[in-house]
Amino acid sequence: MKPRKIILDGMGGDNAPGAIVEGAVAAAGHIKHEICIVGDEHKLREELKRHKFNPAQIELRHAEEAIFGEEAPVKAVRTKQKSSLVMGINMVKDGEGDVFISAGNTGAIMAGGLFILGRIQGIDRPAIASTYPILGQGVSLLVDAGANAECKPNNLLEFATMGSIYMEKVLDRKRPTVGLVNMGTEENKGTTVLKAAWELLAKSRDTFGGLNFVGNIEARDVPMGIADVVVCDGYVGNVILKLTEGLAWNIFKTIKKKFMSGLVPMVGALLLSSKINELRDAFDYSEYGGAPILGVKGALIKMHGSSNANAVKNAILKAIPYVENEVVKNIENAVLELEAIAISE
Amino acid sequence: MKPRKIILDGMGGDNAPGAIVEGAVAAAGHIKHEICIVGDEHKLREELKRHKFNPAQIELRHAEEAIFGEEAPVKAVRTKQKSSLVMGINMVKDGEGDVFISAGNTGAIMAGGLFILGRIQGIDRPAIASTYPILGQGVSLLVDAGANAECKPNNLLEFATMGSIYMEKVLDRKRPTVGLVNMGTEENKGTTVLKAAWELLAKSRDTFGGLNFVGNIEARDVPMGIADVVVCDGYVGNVILKLTEGLAWNIFKTIKKKFMSGLVPMVGALLLSSKINELRDAFDYSEYGGAPILGVKGALIKMHGSSNANAVKNAILKAIPYVENEVVKNIENAVLELEAIAISE
Repeated sequence: MKPRKIILDGMGGDNAPGAIVEGAVAAAGHIKHEICIVGDEHKLREELKRHKFNPAQIELRHAEEAIFGEEAPVKAVRTKQKSSLVMGINMVKDGEGDVFISAGNTGAIMAGGLFILGRIQGIDRPAIASTYPILGQGVSLLVDAGANAECKPNNLLEFATMGSIYMEKVLDRKRPTVGLVNMGTEENKGTTVLKAAWELLAKSRDTFGGLNFVGNIEARDVPMGIADVVVCDGYVGNVILKLTEGLAWNIFKTIKKKFMSGLVPMVGALLLSSKINELRDAFDYSEYGGAPILGVKGALIKMHGSSNANAVKNAILKAIPYVENEVVKNIENAVLELEAIAISE
Repeated sequence: MKPRKIILDGMGGDNAPGAIVEGAVAAAGHIKHEICIVGDEHKLREELKRHKFNPAQIELRHAEEAIFGEEAPVKAVRTKQKSSLVMGINMVKDGEGDVFISAGNTGAIMAGGLFILGRIQGIDRPAIASTYPILGQGVSLLVDAGANAECKPNNLLEFATMGSIYMEKVLDRKRPTVGLVNMGTEENKGTTVLKAAWELLAKSRDTFGGLNFVGNIEARDVPMGIADVVVCDGYVGNVILKLTEGLAWNIFKTIKKKFMSGLVPMVGALLLSSKINELRDAFDYSEYGGAPILGVKGALIKMHGSSNANAVKNAILKAIPYVENEVVKNIENAVLELEAIAISE
């Protein structure tokens, strides 16, 4: 495999630039590829001084501006041409880099993907794909995780297709199963959109080589990993991700409190606490390496806004199979078959 | 307070009639009211024989038919006039009973409510309200929990109003807070419907005496009890309830397994196990006493299909403040104010 260049947004996220630089240095030790960090060169250089690294592997690119979390995404992308985010995405467009990774303003990353890279022809709505932790059994992939609050049936078919490709190419899941989040498992359940999406997905089993649609799934079964690719609109996807995070956090916190509050000091408390922490870590987004924006003409990865160095490192490591296994090109090819399904409707 | 008559569907649910009869006998010991169980009299009498009870407090009403879980709801209600479900709802309509409780076919209970009792004038879409467990802090109320997959903004306003009344009158929460489940807390978030619903709810703070709308809430904060009344469409409500059930179950199961799998026998394992069970019980639907169908002209409570005797008992106990505090009449009065808001749009 040829060496790749990973472009990092040095200014995006709550912990930039420190955590970005630290994560880049940590990842560099594990890979043969180059990393280019875009941002305020002075600040980035100060951060780099704290670490040991191979200077041939990490370079800096100065950006005069930065886009902040509270800015209106479309306006920010349009007007801040010299921001780290816009410059970084342009580097992917121009072939200077292979993938852009940012913990910055999610809307701006999405808008940058749409305006600078453009949609893959035939993909109506790009989506955010997020890994979802299955206790003791790795992860599922949730698409859409929040980019598109309102969806048409064909959007959900696109999400299923793109998610299946990512799951197979990046997470190495052969013939991943696809489930549609609904209010019951019967085929005639749910809203008008869900019913029509079910039809499209069922048809895709035959006409699109490989979509392994297992039907409607209930939210109850999502934490048990009932499907490798969990398909829903961005509103429901956001609810699933956020509720999981909040509920898991609350349960673990309550268990620890309940366990520690015994009047009698309990033998084994420390051991138990460490076991609970192991489980809690399964719900730690920083282990999973960011969420790809699928459906744009280039590799784009969004990290959690509060990403720490570990999250940055994992996002970089996960970006490599994303690029090497040509997820974007695979989606482009799959779209031709998608269109055949949509036309036959 | 005058004695009330509670009508129970003796034939609905996975564990009928045994669990229904057992739950009725258990509840009867705690209340002064009468209970009438509708269903196959022979079978019900056989079940009653197993228990000691006050015969003046529990009566039977024979029903020739029953509606089963897999039946098409509307057709079943239309054609099975002598089913326990249709007869029971008719008893409420005719004033023979004060509330009808069933663990049977949810769609049929809903259809029976709509066709037999009818909608409260001004309520466009009746909803299912479900209690939602907040660890260590009681419950919130989730409306809609699954009756209406697709909603208009005014439906969400109705859910908020009806939920607030139930929360105040039955769960004794003064001036309950109301949150709208959205993808972020900012007011301009989400779908077209959510944006319009936010406007209606915000307006209701001033014009409808008492709606304590706290704005958009994220799913992450629902398990922490950020709002007393959690408002969403039935699709999202179903996702929230089912995901909570599945995730909590999976976490507790995994913790127990992880804890028990140590090579060294751990002191305190039994104590821990019992503490975890205490927590798990917070997610046990059978503790919460069923879900009212709000918006129909009569008191109607749907229990979980797999309700055990404890669930039946709790549903009966919770039905009493529902009836005594005149939730239905309070909703009827509130609707006049709702209409003023809708007209002013």
